[in-house]
Amino acid sequence: MTYKSGRHFLQIPGPSNVPDRILRAMDRPTIDHRGPEFAELGKSVLSGIKQIFKTDNPVVIYPASGTGAWEAALVNTLCSGDRVLMYETGQFATLWHGMTKKLGLEAEFIAGDWRHGVDAGAIGRRLAEDSAHEIKAVCVVHHETSTGVTSDIASVRRAIDAAGHPALLLVDTISGLGSVDFRTDEWGVDVAITCSQKGLMMPPGLSFNAISPKALEASRRATLPRSYWGWDEMLQHNANGYFPYSPATNLLYGLKEAIAMLLEEGLDNVFARHARFSEATRRAVRAWGLEVLSLVPSEHSNVLTTVLVPEGHSADGLRQVILDNFDMSLGTGLNKLQDRAFRIGHLGDFNDLSLLGTLAGVEMGLAIAGVPHSKGGVQAAIDYLAETAPQTQSRDKAA
Amino acid sequence: MTYKSGRHFLQIPGPSNVPDRILRAMDRPTIDHRGPEFAELGKSVLSGIKQIFKTDNPVVIYPASGTGAWEAALVNTLCSGDRVLMYETGQFATLWHGMTKKLGLEAEFIAGDWRHGVDAGAIGRRLAEDSAHEIKAVCVVHHETSTGVTSDIASVRRAIDAAGHPALLLVDTISGLGSVDFRTDEWGVDVAITCSQKGLMMPPGLSFNAISPKALEASRRATLPRSYWGWDEMLQHNANGYFPYSPATNLLYGLKEAIAMLLEEGLDNVFARHARFSEATRRAVRAWGLEVLSLVPSEHSNVLTTVLVPEGHSADGLRQVILDNFDMSLGTGLNKLQDRAFRIGHLGDFNDLSLLGTLAGVEMGLAIAGVPHSKGGVQAAIDYLAETAPQTQSRDKAA
Amino acid sequence: MTYKSGRHFLQIPGPSNVPDRILRAMDRPTIDHRGPEFAELGKSVLSGIKQIFKTDNPVVIYPASGTGAWEAALVNTLCSGDRVLMYETGQFATLWHGMTKKLGLEAEFIAGDWRHGVDAGAIGRRLAEDSAHEIKAVCVVHHETSTGVTSDIASVRRAIDAAGHPALLLVDTISGLGSVDFRTDEWGVDVAITCSQKGLMMPPGLSFNAISPKALEASRRATLPRSYWGWDEMLQHNANGYFPYSPATNLLYGLKEAIAMLLEEGLDNVFARHARFSEATRRAVRAWGLEVLSLVPSEHSNVLTTVLVPEGHSADGLRQVILDNFDMSLGTGLNKLQDRAFRIGHLGDFNDLSLLGTLAGVEMGLAIAGVPHSKGGVQAAIDYLAETAPQTQSRDKAA
Amino acid sequence: MTYKSGRHFLQIPGPSNVPDRILRAMDRPTIDHRGPEFAELGKSVLSGIKQIFKTDNPVVIYPASGTGAWEAALVNTLCSGDRVLMYETGQFATLWHGMTKKLGLEAEFIAGDWRHGVDAGAIGRRLAEDSAHEIKAVCVVHHETSTGVTSDIASVRRAIDAAGHPALLLVDTISGLGSVDFRTDEWGVDVAITCSQKGLMMPPGLSFNAISPKALEASRRATLPRSYWGWDEMLQHNANGYFPYSPATNLLYGLKEAIAMLLEEGLDNVFARHARFSEATRRAVRAWGLEVLSLVPSEHSNVLTTVLVPEGHSADGLRQVILDNFDMSLGTGLNKLQDRAFRIGHLGDFNDLSLLGTLAGVEMGLAIAGVPHSKGGVQAAIDYLAETAPQTQSRDKAA
Repeated sequence: MTYKSGRHFLQIPGPSNVPDRILRAMDRPTIDHRGPEFAELGKSVLSGIKQIFKTDNPVVIYPASGTGAWEAALVNTLCSGDRVLMYETGQFATLWHGMTKKLGLEAEFIAGDWRHGVDAGAIGRRLAEDSAHEIKAVCVVHHETSTGVTSDIASVRRAIDAAGHPALLLVDTISGLGSVDFRTDEWGVDVAITCSQKGLMMPPGLSFNAISPKALEASRRATLPRSYWGWDEMLQHNANGYFPYSPATNLLYGLKEAIAMLLEEGLDNVFARHARFSEATRRAVRAWGLEVLSLVPSEHSNVLTTVLVPEGHSADGLRQVILDNFDMSLGTGLNKLQDRAFRIGHLGDFNDLSLLGTLAGVEMGLAIAGVPHSKGGVQAAIDYLAETAPQTQSRDKAA
Repeated sequence: MTYKSGRHFLQIPGPSNVPDRILRAMDRPTIDHRGPEFAELGKSVLSGIKQIFKTDNPVVIYPASGTGAWEAALVNTLCSGDRVLMYETGQFATLWHGMTKKLGLEAEFIAGDWRHGVDAGAIGRRLAEDSAHEIKAVCVVHHETSTGVTSDIASVRRAIDAAGHPALLLVDTISGLGSVDFRTDEWGVDVAITCSQKGLMMPPGLSFNAISPKALEASRRATLPRSYWGWDEMLQHNANGYFPYSPATNLLYGLKEAIAMLLEEGLDNVFARHARFSEATRRAVRAWGLEVLSLVPSEHSNVLTTVLVPEGHSADGLRQVILDNFDMSLGTGLNKLQDRAFRIGHLGDFNDLSLLGTLAGVEMGLAIAGVPHSKGGVQAAIDYLAETAPQTQSRDKAA
Repeated sequence: MTYKSGRHFLQIPGPSNVPDRILRAMDRPTIDHRGPEFAELGKSVLSGIKQIFKTDNPVVIYPASGTGAWEAALVNTLCSGDRVLMYETGQFATLWHGMTKKLGLEAEFIAGDWRHGVDAGAIGRRLAEDSAHEIKAVCVVHHETSTGVTSDIASVRRAIDAAGHPALLLVDTISGLGSVDFRTDEWGVDVAITCSQKGLMMPPGLSFNAISPKALEASRRATLPRSYWGWDEMLQHNANGYFPYSPATNLLYGLKEAIAMLLEEGLDNVFARHARFSEATRRAVRAWGLEVLSLVPSEHSNVLTTVLVPEGHSADGLRQVILDNFDMSLGTGLNKLQDRAFRIGHLGDFNDLSLLGTLAGVEMGLAIAGVPHSKGGVQAAIDYLAETAPQTQSRDKAA
Repeated sequence: MTYKSGRHFLQIPGPSNVPDRILRAMDRPTIDHRGPEFAELGKSVLSGIKQIFKTDNPVVIYPASGTGAWEAALVNTLCSGDRVLMYETGQFATLWHGMTKKLGLEAEFIAGDWRHGVDAGAIGRRLAEDSAHEIKAVCVVHHETSTGVTSDIASVRRAIDAAGHPALLLVDTISGLGSVDFRTDEWGVDVAITCSQKGLMMPPGLSFNAISPKALEASRRATLPRSYWGWDEMLQHNANGYFPYSPATNLLYGLKEAIAMLLEEGLDNVFARHARFSEATRRAVRAWGLEVLSLVPSEHSNVLTTVLVPEGHSADGLRQVILDNFDMSLGTGLNKLQDRAFRIGHLGDFNDLSLLGTLAGVEMGLAIAGVPHSKGGVQAAIDYLAETAPQTQSRDKAA
């Protein structure tokens, strides 16, 4: 191992920087997952995570990545050959779509341009046509990690309702939950899907399904083969704080701490903080004269910003320059954005000075890599953050 | 939190006591799972784990519990309605059997008495009858955690071969690997299944499939729906040290350390150590006048010892007394052994003095709980351990 | 590094086994020792440690070993050439005596046999003779770590008072505080001295002076050169939670946790626990037919037990056998006890099962090393601990 | 505890940010400081630290703050009433001067303006006058933490030699060692003094004396009372890797890691990195139109930069604004600089992006606090750092 001075800047859009409090919470001996101490832990996280999902319904926790929670949402609610309606917001919507085929579902995939969120109108129109109610579920991504575009889930709900259609609404909020507002119950989400390594600030290894009564009802009729992902046994054991098979105990220690931290800061404060970082980042990008991928202001991600590099320049080359020179990891452009864009993660356990370090790393990288740009991005962010600093009232102290 | 002095004795048969080195290895910031530093980690653990499995073939690593690795073994190799042959060694064989139904397989379950390992002869006879080769896989448990009985996997292989039967051999060595010898390639195991929290000394959250070329070939024809568990994408990404979806990075840090520790001690030394602890434990049980569940000496587990309590006494009551008074967790009797037996785990990161503390806790518990027994179990273990101490040649130093 | 399975048994009489909670508390970034967050920490530990010392007077905390706190007690209260009266309870009293010479004091050292505590009568008689009050301080060791003998400090106080002598009473309770009762104010101790790595369960690196008003008054007239150890600047800065020079911040994190843990368990429970371990240990020693160094039952240490080995056998050889075979460190015999005795530490973060593992290690070591003894020491301890188990009322649960 | 998002920026000039590797190294059970494993640790750190000091002579390690190591240097080499010559470089020189009085020495203190390093000429002139060789030691600060000014120690050595004077040269390199070049042997330093929490990147709690043969010889004649600080016993025990009293074992774990990290990076690389950060910081300060305290370019500190605030503005108010709004601690102005200046630490485990975050925090603080300044400091630093980036050759990758 060769020592590299200072902390790595992990500014991919997840895994996000894991705070020491969470790492330290995980750094404890594993306990008996059938004993009384575990039951307290289990009840605590199962109850606490509901507050983060803003739901009164059960949330199940899998020892698995987010991809597993996608699969769980599908296999618990659907039958082989069922038709689902999906929307191409970006790479993760595309991957989820790919999964449906592997699981034997029939998916319709409404094409998108990767620069906009879900078009609820298109969904509503398709459902209205489906008078036989062959479509069993609408699957959309709340916050598309590959593009940095947020979709208006409430509008999707309204579209479904307006069409008088009984389809379930399954929503991936993998990179949204805990960073931007998500209201499982209020928005009528039937299955909300997330994982541990984004807004929850944890290492990967846990994923989640928040389950509406309607989804639970569907699971009783759903016939896709399932065992590991089965909600029924999970919920049965969860009632007492336990799990049907070995839970990832040490990750649950971390989850307990993560929930506590989010509630200490207050969810609204968390969301406002992310929004402020996001605005600062876009101001920097504009000052550099570069283009943000997301086109609609109300859909701009508060979690990450995808930046297009000018034609003839390599986004991955730029990322490599930044990694080599400044020990910062940025997100790569995925699929059709490969080498055309890079993604700046500004989520999770993060603050003003780390954001400015991050943006400075990008600005220096642009210079070194010879990517055409104007200076002044960091300055623009500094100006905005100073102006909106949380405690500017302390100004008088120094006058 | 109320401070309880001293360390908890986690003497269930897994999760085993996680050594500090592994906890500390996990207590590090998560890194970019798409970056070059991760590739080194990925290659290191993917290569290292093969040494533990004693295989030259690929091993895949899931962010999941062992139950998931059971499912992975089945869905990658089988088609809906396929017939499998299983053997009832105990509760975990029973649970695995239960899983086959959920996944749409047809399982034959050869009955066992929970006190013996797999009867390879019975398997051979059944396969010999199956001239149409309807049985696609034989699924057995190498080391039955619920009973403390080891099965002779090599003999199962010989029985399959003697029957000239093409069935795959799927083996659960969840509580065996890393504690008792397991030879994936030499024994002709097609899929070997394990997880992180037993002999690998880690917290739960990772599980494994070691895959023979024959199993891999079968996976190309297998049609059970699968996505998360799919070997193909895993192997494709693993080739470069990466994973198709977010890996449980911090658990992989721990895995790297676990592999290093097992290789530092030397697998043969690890196995000999477990055998010695096991013999000491049985000597204690016999001295107490209690009965070990496992009936055949060559099948006695080196990982845990299941002890029957005399009629009219409660094994769970005893366990509670021991937990309340001595802060030690023992394994409960499962299913038909409920309240009739308890299990002493003596696996993983463990040494002579901790074993004797463990046995002393049992002996004191028996006294407090009023379970009829003779004193002297700990003394018997002390005598055996002193006699077989690793460095008795140092005796002369003190003469 | 070669992996050695299981946890090391650190059964020297300090440093004691540091519990994970304390290690984890220390594993946090250092903070600004001049900032507001530090002031809270400083106030918390400065106030909390007074509860452990049972004093209402100030306690100062040095970034130093216990040896430094000895020096601090002397240089703050005395002048060059001052006469002090000391008592030879063992090696640490001897070392403290040695220090007085280096510092230019005149010490009288009442001889002892290392098997008894302080003879308060002898002290009283000497003080009575000192009508000129040339003796400025009486320096005694409350709990002699080298022998495992406790002294009756209240009786020393009474002897001083009975003699009508103004000498200060300086007491080393380095291995006593936090394990056996110590009442700074009630016993009229003028300077009580301790350090972090014994009953406080921490790593070494902090030491303490609890200071009576009389000692503080003396410090204003004392002329021994001092700077680092000076109470005046310490107390001045401590008033606001700060320190005059850089404090050992991360050790203070640990101290805060240690104090919390002792208060959670309750000091009386802590003392009772140590007494019970001590009695169990002596029963084991007697069963082995070996001799405990401490001769007077009321003076037996609850922290450690010094065991004499039979003539013609090597205590250090025995310790080496135990270290080599069972990964346990025991305390060596010091000075005139070298190779004649070994010391078993049973203090700090410790419980019944660890004690029995410890005693089992000794019993096995005696056998391997060929030290003449009877078997049954561990059995005797088991019997005693079972009989006095904290929650034997839970007996009925299992009946 | 209320969660504050992101990492605190600890940009005081020590304690510096402790890297995780060091914290994790310390987060291990304490071992027997009289056992063989400890001897290896002891030898490793005692040998390794010599490489950092660039000396072939012994270095002793105290469980103490740096202040203790000042005291150790004096009491080991001097007698009561001895005359020493000191130079007022700033607050720490002043404090050390204050200590000499408490210890009964006669100090001459050559006045300085706190904006320059030691004037070797003045020292040479004073020594030349001292034909009776009454001055026994010259005591200077290599790197004055209160001002950010470095002194040329080699020139002091030359001045002493040129005067043909036998005085010892005692040098405080508390905030220099491990960040800026220090050559104990080459520069003829008789006692070099440092501590753990600056360039060694550790928490406070260890301090050091590197001892020349001449200093060791002096210690045999020195009569100031000493015990804890006595070199003789230290060196005697150190020969075998041990210490005369309990060492701060867990801090030594950290020290071993710190030495390894510095040698992995390479001392010359470490020094160059600090120099680059320092230049970037001064460019920022100049761009803001503010004044750096240090006046002579060759003396500018590479460890910290002291910045004067314009008349009529409060440096401490500014620091408070920055702490409240941006969770960054800066160093206060000490003594006559109180409220007139603040200090930016840019030492230890630190990198470009953290430095730019730091400077951005200052620039935003200036704006919020209403301190007159020009924008563009961060931009100036960005420009410089990009231009001097370590791997600009990677530029081509992205072209």
